[in-house]
Amino acid sequence: MDYQGVLTEIAASVKGLVGSGQVADYIPALSSVDPDQFGIAVADVHGEVHGVGDWQVPFSVQSVSKPFALALALAHSGEGIWRRVGREPSGTAFNSLVQLEHEHGVPRNPFINAGALVITDHLVTTTGDAGTAVLDLLRAESGNPHISVDEDVAISELANADRNAALAHLMASYGNMENPVPVVLENYFWQCAVRMSCRDLATAGLFLAREGVRADGSRLLSGSLTKRVNSVMLTCGTYDAAGDFAYRVGLPGKSGVGGGILAVIPNRCALCVWSPGLDARGNSVAGVAALEEFTTLTGWSVF
Amino acid sequence: MDYQGVLTEIAASVKGLVGSGQVADYIPALSSVDPDQFGIAVADVHGEVHGVGDWQVPFSVQSVSKPFALALALAHSGEGIWRRVGREPSGTAFNSLVQLEHEHGVPRNPFINAGALVITDHLVTTTGDAGTAVLDLLRAESGNPHISVDEDVAISELANADRNAALAHLMASYGNMENPVPVVLENYFWQCAVRMSCRDLATAGLFLAREGVRADGSRLLSGSLTKRVNSVMLTCGTYDAAGDFAYRVGLPGKSGVGGGILAVIPNRCALCVWSPGLDARGNSVAGVAALEEFTTLTGWSVF
Amino acid sequence: MDYQGVLTEIAASVKGLVGSGQVADYIPALSSVDPDQFGIAVADVHGEVHGVGDWQVPFSVQSVSKPFALALALAHSGEGIWRRVGREPSGTAFNSLVQLEHEHGVPRNPFINAGALVITDHLVTTTGDAGTAVLDLLRAESGNPHISVDEDVAISELANADRNAALAHLMASYGNMENPVPVVLENYFWQCAVRMSCRDLATAGLFLAREGVRADGSRLLSGSLTKRVNSVMLTCGTYDAAGDFAYRVGLPGKSGVGGGILAVIPNRCALCVWSPGLDARGNSVAGVAALEEFTTLTGWSVF
Amino acid sequence: MDYQGVLTEIAASVKGLVGSGQVADYIPALSSVDPDQFGIAVADVHGEVHGVGDWQVPFSVQSVSKPFALALALAHSGEGIWRRVGREPSGTAFNSLVQLEHEHGVPRNPFINAGALVITDHLVTTTGDAGTAVLDLLRAESGNPHISVDEDVAISELANADRNAALAHLMASYGNMENPVPVVLENYFWQCAVRMSCRDLATAGLFLAREGVRADGSRLLSGSLTKRVNSVMLTCGTYDAAGDFAYRVGLPGKSGVGGGILAVIPNRCALCVWSPGLDARGNSVAGVAALEEFTTLTGWSVF
Repeated sequence: MDYQGVLTEIAASVKGLVGSGQVADYIPALSSVDPDQFGIAVADVHGEVHGVGDWQVPFSVQSVSKPFALALALAHSGEGIWRRVGREPSGTAFNSLVQLEHEHGVPRNPFINAGALVITDHLVTTTGDAGTAVLDLLRAESGNPHISVDEDVAISELANADRNAALAHLMASYGNMENPVPVVLENYFWQCAVRMSCRDLATAGLFLAREGVRADGSRLLSGSLTKRVNSVMLTCGTYDAAGDFAYRVGLPGKSGVGGGILAVIPNRCALCVWSPGLDARGNSVAGVAALEEFTTLTGWSVF
Repeated sequence: MDYQGVLTEIAASVKGLVGSGQVADYIPALSSVDPDQFGIAVADVHGEVHGVGDWQVPFSVQSVSKPFALALALAHSGEGIWRRVGREPSGTAFNSLVQLEHEHGVPRNPFINAGALVITDHLVTTTGDAGTAVLDLLRAESGNPHISVDEDVAISELANADRNAALAHLMASYGNMENPVPVVLENYFWQCAVRMSCRDLATAGLFLAREGVRADGSRLLSGSLTKRVNSVMLTCGTYDAAGDFAYRVGLPGKSGVGGGILAVIPNRCALCVWSPGLDARGNSVAGVAALEEFTTLTGWSVF
Repeated sequence: MDYQGVLTEIAASVKGLVGSGQVADYIPALSSVDPDQFGIAVADVHGEVHGVGDWQVPFSVQSVSKPFALALALAHSGEGIWRRVGREPSGTAFNSLVQLEHEHGVPRNPFINAGALVITDHLVTTTGDAGTAVLDLLRAESGNPHISVDEDVAISELANADRNAALAHLMASYGNMENPVPVVLENYFWQCAVRMSCRDLATAGLFLAREGVRADGSRLLSGSLTKRVNSVMLTCGTYDAAGDFAYRVGLPGKSGVGGGILAVIPNRCALCVWSPGLDARGNSVAGVAALEEFTTLTGWSVF
Repeated sequence: MDYQGVLTEIAASVKGLVGSGQVADYIPALSSVDPDQFGIAVADVHGEVHGVGDWQVPFSVQSVSKPFALALALAHSGEGIWRRVGREPSGTAFNSLVQLEHEHGVPRNPFINAGALVITDHLVTTTGDAGTAVLDLLRAESGNPHISVDEDVAISELANADRNAALAHLMASYGNMENPVPVVLENYFWQCAVRMSCRDLATAGLFLAREGVRADGSRLLSGSLTKRVNSVMLTCGTYDAAGDFAYRVGLPGKSGVGGGILAVIPNRCALCVWSPGLDARGNSVAGVAALEEFTTLTGWSVF
């Protein structure tokens, strides 16, 4: 596969979309990013890494950290975590608190905020420091020890945490929170505020395309559990647009409000695309279009 | 692949589950079925068909007819149908009427009842007789001209149609119904009441594994549209258990309350499993277990 | 009490509001009414009737017929009707279908559409002809035998009945509908399409201020049941603005989208005000203001 | 009126209900109360106070403090408070978080928890110490300077505050919280944990029956605002049973999970009844029955 040629063609094809959409603006540290950026990188299972555009520029990973946290929790504790969080699509964004109430404090899946708070809480219990545990995994898998947390972003998120605090307290009221809410929130925002480039994220996600095998050849997850993480990414990875993402792109993927999206093609490669402008459902406009173009050009949709 | 051996092993493995769960009992014609039946069939893209157990016994296809109706609507009208129906998972069963109200009469996807009523309505408009159009497709693709509608079931469903009538009238109140509600309901129940065996259904579904190519070599859908039908089956095909089905089975699939499930492995084969006992979310208990076993034994999950 | 003086003062006071708001426009027969009309009438328990403005002009009573239907149902069948319909405020308009689904087809109260359909269904069962039963009551209590149904309105409503049909079918799916949905809808629209003046409605409502005693001196309801109808009017009579109406006006009242409102001051009088312009919650803008002015001037709020 | 005779008759009449229902058990300090207690007191506008049973035994007032907090907020700030909280019945208990989300952090009314938190927040802003402000009002109006807060209850509530914290943080996320959530929660629980007897509460509530005039002859609220507090009590004072309470009792009333209910008969008297056993909607079983009996015997329903 001529990855470099494909990526170059994609970059040309989505050029008109870069800068469109809306940059996340709920905290100043995110809203000040230049919207006219676009990068895409692919890391294949044989060790090749290619990229075009701003593929080496670090950005705020935000929710793209969630599959890494999920993988860690599964690695530590196995499928027992599903007692505390489901693995069903949530339906609508608006429903989050409703569903949490209906379903007695058990969030729908680990990729909505409520579910990610449960995973964080679990990692706080099992590792003592969920933020560091996720950061260590990201550094080790990307091979980049300089990856770090943007403390301005983390602090700014903590200062605007009321909605996540509401979710965490509601779960606590149902007995589904093991650690104090402020501790869980801090660990949660810490992992969201990590800054990485497309190159780093694609490389770090490679274990999801390699049946759970890490950069150092050891195994993080069994092949079966890895497929399961991928299935949750496909059905729940792009907020209330998971069906549309599956329809257009046809790959397991996880997006973040920083404009990044990580996608996995089992046994082939991991991809990361980034462009800050978001659509109404919180996914990068140029990013989704680039991934759609990728599966169209390569025919590598899982369907 | 030794299909016959794999299917035999699966049948032995799920034997203890056959008869468990609850047979659909909302109409007498369905509740009287013998729960101790199990069949599974696989039709591969090279023309082989294998099966074990009650794989040649006809049963009521119910919602397994929905992907065929969707494929027909896409074949006739292309992606314009998405103006009238979405392609996102619905979240929770209980939400159906809520969501329909929130989203102004546009149902979440074509595989919940409301969405299937829209597809039926569309086919009534474009073909004049949606029930016959779907039946003709099922006969042609399965190669079995004797497939027929169980009129007792159809009549019994019509006599218990209040909930579907409520959905249809609600959509009509938003202008999302082109034909009179009673006409749409009759055409809808007609296609649900078709009786087919696992053999017939696996064979009929083969075009979904062959990028849209029909039994006679002509094309029903483009390769791209076929992938898209598969993606909707994966994210929305098993009611409010789509995430769990993707997690355990890892295949596009569509279940029905008659106990049948159709699954697709792109470029390899189509599968149909049947056992009448349903779990709490309306999917065949032994059927889901058999498909999970199939992807475990073959490694053919899409993830 | 100088009723005539009070009514004249009120008419002057609300003059600036007449014509504001939005005339009901979901059917042509209602949307064509002249918005610049205002009438108010009071009928006291001693037999006096006073009015100002367009108080003798007939208008479409719409939901103002609902307390009369409820009174008839209670008179025929007593408190057993509460097995089929509740007497709690509904919370939000938008919730109607949600609540109906949650609460298994038992509507919140007899003054939302779903509840009024249950009352109509009950009257169809007990009287054979709910529309005529309500019309007869309105004629007898107002002393005006010429009151009639506007058939254009009734037919137009029937032609736009999808939402009410959805409610009725949903209730039928829970076993809470005794007669065929089309029969219930026809009887329901028949009573909504009655045309009456403020004079007629205030006079007809007098039994609610007289502890259940009718115009002819006989008793329709016991004193206790009459108080209970008044309590349901206060808590549920003005759609999702019942709390605001109680706060501003402080009287049991029932509004209709024709712009009429009937209010009751126990042991003193019944009032009817009419002006077609509606606020966002479906209540007459000038009408609510006029009633608020009435209780301010007289001090006759129930609180 | 022979109050003593009426109260004695009521006590005899509801005797069989005392001890039935369920004592509030979400905190130990409440669950340990003896369920076989019943008291009722009436304070009339002429200064008479009567009582029977355990009418002089202090109990935890809980939500019965809410109308006093509302009255203080209206006294300090007038009707501007309605920008931050509505005055509509909430519909269903289950909906509280849903509605809060739908309605952008503006709670339905001041008597559900979310609304009471807004009122408390407002009083923290205007008085500096909402807990003490409410306590001072209760002492002054009851004439009992020994009324105090049960600190065990307050501390126990704070330790189980997750659900209220979720509500407060959700409102904060919409900008509807002026003070830090922990401060508001502490002030809120402080006023709920006040211990008073039926005698004290009936006397303290008398200003609501006297058009706003306090025990010392000064005015807390205008007559018009007092009527408005009463109207909110009637439509929203008994959780999701307000319609039923209005139907059966026909008075403005406010209940608490300690088993107390305060009711107001404008221009006549204030009543307080107490018995710890609660019905499924959180209102005292024997208490509601006693008030129903009171209006039946006296004919003093507002309807």
